[in-house]
Amino acid sequence: MTRPSEDDLIARFFAPLATSAGADGLTDDAAVVPEGEGDLVVTKDMAIAGVHFFPDDPPGLIAAKALRVNLSDLAAKGAVPSGFLLGLGLPPDWTTDFLAAFADGLGRDITAYGCPLLGGDTVKVPGPLTLSVTAFGRATRTVRRRGARPGDLLCVTGTIGDGALGLAARQAERQPATAPDWLRLIAPEERAHLVDRYLSPRPRVALAAAVARHASAAMDVSDGLVGDLAKMMAASGTGARLDAGAVPLSGAAAAAIALDPALRMRALTGGDDYEILLACPPDRLAALRDDAAAANVPLTVIGEVTEGAEVSWTAGGQVLSFGSGRFEHF
Amino acid sequence: MTRPSEDDLIARFFAPLATSAGADGLTDDAAVVPEGEGDLVVTKDMAIAGVHFFPDDPPGLIAAKALRVNLSDLAAKGAVPSGFLLGLGLPPDWTTDFLAAFADGLGRDITAYGCPLLGGDTVKVPGPLTLSVTAFGRATRTVRRRGARPGDLLCVTGTIGDGALGLAARQAERQPATAPDWLRLIAPEERAHLVDRYLSPRPRVALAAAVARHASAAMDVSDGLVGDLAKMMAASGTGARLDAGAVPLSGAAAAAIALDPALRMRALTGGDDYEILLACPPDRLAALRDDAAAANVPLTVIGEVTEGAEVSWTAGGQVLSFGSGRFEHF
Repeated sequence: MTRPSEDDLIARFFAPLATSAGADGLTDDAAVVPEGEGDLVVTKDMAIAGVHFFPDDPPGLIAAKALRVNLSDLAAKGAVPSGFLLGLGLPPDWTTDFLAAFADGLGRDITAYGCPLLGGDTVKVPGPLTLSVTAFGRATRTVRRRGARPGDLLCVTGTIGDGALGLAARQAERQPATAPDWLRLIAPEERAHLVDRYLSPRPRVALAAAVARHASAAMDVSDGLVGDLAKMMAASGTGARLDAGAVPLSGAAAAAIALDPALRMRALTGGDDYEILLACPPDRLAALRDDAAAANVPLTVIGEVTEGAEVSWTAGGQVLSFGSGRFEHF
Repeated sequence: MTRPSEDDLIARFFAPLATSAGADGLTDDAAVVPEGEGDLVVTKDMAIAGVHFFPDDPPGLIAAKALRVNLSDLAAKGAVPSGFLLGLGLPPDWTTDFLAAFADGLGRDITAYGCPLLGGDTVKVPGPLTLSVTAFGRATRTVRRRGARPGDLLCVTGTIGDGALGLAARQAERQPATAPDWLRLIAPEERAHLVDRYLSPRPRVALAAAVARHASAAMDVSDGLVGDLAKMMAASGTGARLDAGAVPLSGAAAAAIALDPALRMRALTGGDDYEILLACPPDRLAALRDDAAAANVPLTVIGEVTEGAEVSWTAGGQVLSFGSGRFEHF
């Protein structure tokens, strides 16, 4: 099968996804971002095969995840998505089948999240598949990392650790001989849940407006809860007191940790959660909880912001130390 | 020398370039695009080492060109730059010296073009240096490729062909044994001019406002004048009559063509010009010329838009045919 030119490829796979007037059907070198109220928030995350995803992950999920990690950043800033640009660097061995599946996965998410493709660039790379997504959103108030104040309650959405444990499960799928014991012992549906959470993060777009209304500080949890929380407190010039026992776990993650207690560290410090960590003034918590319930987003209080610079984690009354990123005592 | 972490690298090399309030000092996952009047125009061009630039090009010029090709797209749409995002994929052998020079070149252009760094993403790639720039601009009217009307005059800024001939000159610099005769015969300062035009395009930002005021259609010339003009006419549903003899050439390009007449084809069909091709209604030409003169941008009429779909090039009364991109008669 001959492979299409760049123009043909864009016309065939991507122009159908570019329904916004400002995209001009992807027939031009630039797009016009839709008008809207509030701050125009932009974020850009790259994803490289072999670094951020496995080259043999399903193409539609590769595309969707590249978009979703950006929508997660927007949601954590309080921004509702309004469109995105796709930079696509195709490796020498790309196929039209790959692109068709890639565009199909992207199209589903464009519809699901109401986030049209506005434009982008397609190039060939003498290297791995390279994705660079720039996503736009509107926020009535852009919520920064640096706004937390002593007394604020620290909350996370959803569950923590599935992404990191799912990465291990996905690695074991690809190389079964290297699977650790817990992955051999865990129920198949729990293993599947973890792999799914790794391959298909669920950006908390539904909570974006509530974040803008209530949060004093927020960020998405992409590099591990412990590290990301430390960054948010450092940016805010505050400390925090956290209860590791309060950190919400999925049934699958709890089962994995029951089989191998050391996995609790991986759950707390691993990445790929794409949940929202936020600080909420106590007098806004009830309203935030109502908004989260209305958006069908689970929300859990895991600690509070303190004066000073110390971030302390406890569990069952015992102090935990993550030291240089290593989980030294639990 | 130990290499800095991603956060250190951002703080050291890029945060000083992010002076816009919306960039929040690059301490967050997202940026707020500055407010402004008119359409918010966005464009995204990737640049890959070994494809779009030579890995041993000067780092500051690699950075500047990655930004400038985007500013060129904006200017051709009538948009004045307001900021950009940088996606930076670092290959395994990156050095802090490289990054320091890269950031220095970027910083010069940020100042020169008034286009602040708003944010981005830095990742490691198991492949070539990968740049993905998303640039924003404001246009009082976004000028598309598709607006040309029969009777409009076709104009280009600057000179055509220096980029394509400069690419040949840069290749010869890197591999002197392969240099064609014309590069051995041309004056050193002319060779240097061509290399400079290839390495350092000059986006016509100064003409952006005039494009928005006067042009019925416009695009930047990045893939070769003949091909880009054909695209603009196809998008407009028009044909065109062009005088190849009117296409402006630099002294260096003219000297090269005098040495090797076949280079005229390369000048007209090669890429990397980053000049603006535009269609202008005849009654706006005088005002456009005045604005171009005030902006110190040379502007040349090279033909006119016609009914129908045929794009015909003549030179000295003879019809030229580029056939399937090949220069078949001149």
